[in-house]
Amino acid sequence: MASRKNTGAFITFEGGEGAGKSTQIRAVGERLRAAGHEVVTTREPGGSSGAEAIREFLLFGGHDLSARAEIMMHFAARCDHVDQVIRPAVEAGKIVLCDRFFDSTMAYQAYGRGNGDPALINMVQSLRDLVRMTPDLTVLFQVDLETGLRRAMARAVAISGQGAPLDRYESADRSFHERVAEGFRAIAEAEPGRFARVASESEDVATITDTVVGLIETFLERR
Amino acid sequence: MASRKNTGAFITFEGGEGAGKSTQIRAVGERLRAAGHEVVTTREPGGSSGAEAIREFLLFGGHDLSARAEIMMHFAARCDHVDQVIRPAVEAGKIVLCDRFFDSTMAYQAYGRGNGDPALINMVQSLRDLVRMTPDLTVLFQVDLETGLRRAMARAVAISGQGAPLDRYESADRSFHERVAEGFRAIAEAEPGRFARVASESEDVATITDTVVGLIETFLERR
Repeated sequence: MASRKNTGAFITFEGGEGAGKSTQIRAVGERLRAAGHEVVTTREPGGSSGAEAIREFLLFGGHDLSARAEIMMHFAARCDHVDQVIRPAVEAGKIVLCDRFFDSTMAYQAYGRGNGDPALINMVQSLRDLVRMTPDLTVLFQVDLETGLRRAMARAVAISGQGAPLDRYESADRSFHERVAEGFRAIAEAEPGRFARVASESEDVATITDTVVGLIETFLERR
Repeated sequence: MASRKNTGAFITFEGGEGAGKSTQIRAVGERLRAAGHEVVTTREPGGSSGAEAIREFLLFGGHDLSARAEIMMHFAARCDHVDQVIRPAVEAGKIVLCDRFFDSTMAYQAYGRGNGDPALINMVQSLRDLVRMTPDLTVLFQVDLETGLRRAMARAVAISGQGAPLDRYESADRSFHERVAEGFRAIAEAEPGRFARVASESEDVATITDTVVGLIETFLERR
């Protein structure tokens, strides 16, 4: 069991729909707390009061924003989340586990919605630098597209009690999700030092939790 | 009278409260139309459907965003406004007159709310570059603080029929408005080629309109 660390860490969980991030972030958080760490779990878009309001605006407001404006809104929410939640927690020595961060904006908005437009990719890169809060470690959950979309659909039915419409990201078409997966692969290949990839389709949930906790403990001990 | 130009132009009107921008933009727009130009008048924050929704969120939503998040929201609205209104009009050969643009974000958010924090000034500069839509000409209306605030107050009373609360920018304190004025001066001094300053406290409205129309016609003929 690791001893309590006095220096904080910022760790993000990334991946497409149904990759198991949300399930894992809860389980991994519990395990790290049991090991003596102070842990904050949070998510994007959202995670602070102002950012949650921006999330509502983006996901359910029905506003037809340009691709650049949508990217900028995600980063506005992110700045609030960083300034009001993430940075204070990391500076207080806590481990922050965040479900999605700027890699999701690159994958969903620049690669997915934006079809990999180089101007949008460059814009996300510039905004990423402006945030000044790069994750110390990013765990990328990879699942094949069929499995991921089936899981996301099953979750939506379980939550709503009927075949309710998914939110706008999950209901987009298949080629969109292929471009998102391509985006995540491209980012992970460009920054191998920051990324750890976890295949999440075959193993059971507890085995994957063991893997992720092991990755994080190793990262915390080595740094 | 100038002949119709085939190349568009993007001209912004800037200044503190009660400097007369809104009155002038209407009058100047009419004069330029009478001279044969195709003119679009617009304003910020807002100017497109999505940007107007962001304006409501910012001015009246009551969300306590961090300074960085507020700046980013203004630029999100601006990207939508540029992509959906300003750039298409300029590319179609029209003259776009815009009441406030990114110089207002620098003056109000970085100098005013942000107390001239160099990190916020740098952030606005980076975002300004990302927008890729620099005004061809910016008319800065300068008025002394007392006159400007008295005018803004009188306008609010005239609109509401009572001493209604001003919006959050107009109701801020005096030192805030001094910092905003200092911000506008700093930007105008850094880019003398883009800025034309107009003193708007002593002259009557029609005389100022003549001055501004003259400035714009000269700019259009010389370029």
